[in-house]
Amino acid sequence: MTMTTFFSLLEQRVAASDSLLCVGLDPHLHDLPTPTADSALNFCLHLVRNTAPYAAAFKPNIAFFEVFGAEGWRALQALIQAIREQADRLGSPIPIILDAKRGDIASTAEAYARSAFETLGVDAITLSPYLGRDSVEPFLGDPTKGVFLLCKTSNAGSMEIQNLLVLPVGSDRPMPLYLYIAELAVAWNQSGNIGLVVGATHPQIMAHIRAAAPGMWFLAPGIGVQGGELEQALRAGLRSDGLGLLINVSRSIARSDDPVRAAAHLRDAILRLRNSLKR
Amino acid sequence: MTMTTFFSLLEQRVAASDSLLCVGLDPHLHDLPTPTADSALNFCLHLVRNTAPYAAAFKPNIAFFEVFGAEGWRALQALIQAIREQADRLGSPIPIILDAKRGDIASTAEAYARSAFETLGVDAITLSPYLGRDSVEPFLGDPTKGVFLLCKTSNAGSMEIQNLLVLPVGSDRPMPLYLYIAELAVAWNQSGNIGLVVGATHPQIMAHIRAAAPGMWFLAPGIGVQGGELEQALRAGLRSDGLGLLINVSRSIARSDDPVRAAAHLRDAILRLRNSLKR
Repeated sequence: MTMTTFFSLLEQRVAASDSLLCVGLDPHLHDLPTPTADSALNFCLHLVRNTAPYAAAFKPNIAFFEVFGAEGWRALQALIQAIREQADRLGSPIPIILDAKRGDIASTAEAYARSAFETLGVDAITLSPYLGRDSVEPFLGDPTKGVFLLCKTSNAGSMEIQNLLVLPVGSDRPMPLYLYIAELAVAWNQSGNIGLVVGATHPQIMAHIRAAAPGMWFLAPGIGVQGGELEQALRAGLRSDGLGLLINVSRSIARSDDPVRAAAHLRDAILRLRNSLKR
Repeated sequence: MTMTTFFSLLEQRVAASDSLLCVGLDPHLHDLPTPTADSALNFCLHLVRNTAPYAAAFKPNIAFFEVFGAEGWRALQALIQAIREQADRLGSPIPIILDAKRGDIASTAEAYARSAFETLGVDAITLSPYLGRDSVEPFLGDPTKGVFLLCKTSNAGSMEIQNLLVLPVGSDRPMPLYLYIAELAVAWNQSGNIGLVVGATHPQIMAHIRAAAPGMWFLAPGIGVQGGELEQALRAGLRSDGLGLLINVSRSIARSDDPVRAAAHLRDAILRLRNSLKR
């Protein structure tokens, strides 16, 4: 019997939906008919209803709710509830990853963990590694809750710090910071509930990180508007079992005239490419 | 005529209050009589009323409000309003620094900036540098709003990543990551509204960062419960003009039987040490 972890729950959903697609729920102000929390909620509910059958996971980014203050938080809580109900109708729980990129000292991290996993009740959260292990540990106590640690992000500015060559203590072999973070994450992953954020915009780098963390799940933003290419990302990031890579797509589904078709098309394109790479 | 920036506003308050003390507003759950947003608000209001005359700035940490979801955000908004009213009574605006440690790609960072500076209406925010310049820029457009970039934090885990030796491109001189971040911050500081978070728990490191960023304001947590020593921190972190260092204290004021006396005592101790170091 293997332990139930966030990632085993995710793998159940991947099997049930035959999908590696993570649908990003990012209600950008300029995509909303009116700048209100209700409008942000409706924007996301429309996406959830249309894409749930094709979603291995949903990833709301909390920034687009915080813009509306307390009302935005209320909308986020309603959205999470609606995703749970939609998944019940489908008969298959859909993991919710809160994109929050938090990172603070342990006593504060405990409050953030409680906020995400208890108050909001999401299944996983994205975290920044800059403060070190003690800032991540408060999120790891419950193995059914997951953490995606920022390793190599999809933006241009990620080169400035994440690509720096670092000299680990006791080593004379310089390595990029993102690779060092991947190695730390593997060492910190005692409960099997850590994954990595690895942008799809840098497939060669993704391949290096995959070599350093062969068993980990990657959450990969950057496909679509940000310019990442799907086939290269799958080639670089899939585990040897054909899993381990969640392709996050936000704007190209949300801004499509037909989000059902856009999500179905992406889910199928990922599957087809994955299956052709397997052979 | 010099441009009005967040830091010129801060320096006005430092002069008016004769203080370099930043009062942290961290309503830890276990310090509250009941685990409610109202209780967190009352805890902070008590601190604000008692310490305002001695506060160069207030620093609420948003994690302790997010624990309560939408109600927590409402409490934070009420707290900010109460600080403004208290400052009006004193006849001197008191800067509010939101401790949030955000950091995301530019389009998301815009939403976080709007949330902090418009929805909440704070004067400054703490940010993580891990995603690079494009993640910080959306916060810099209005020079009257400030950013404190995490450079060297006060926790033990900060050694793991922030102390790594890095080799900047085109350089064969390894330097600790925190020093590289300080140099980047100086380069990014075109509008004069960036400061650094530098833990008071590592005074030697603070002295190195001061040498790399001689003109910048530092926000220094870690005095008190976290073990940092005041005199060493002032010696290491003050600018040559006797300013540039905000000593943040949270728990040793909040948990004191007499927060008025604790805040007054700290303000005076900082001043006395600062003046003795000047000579």
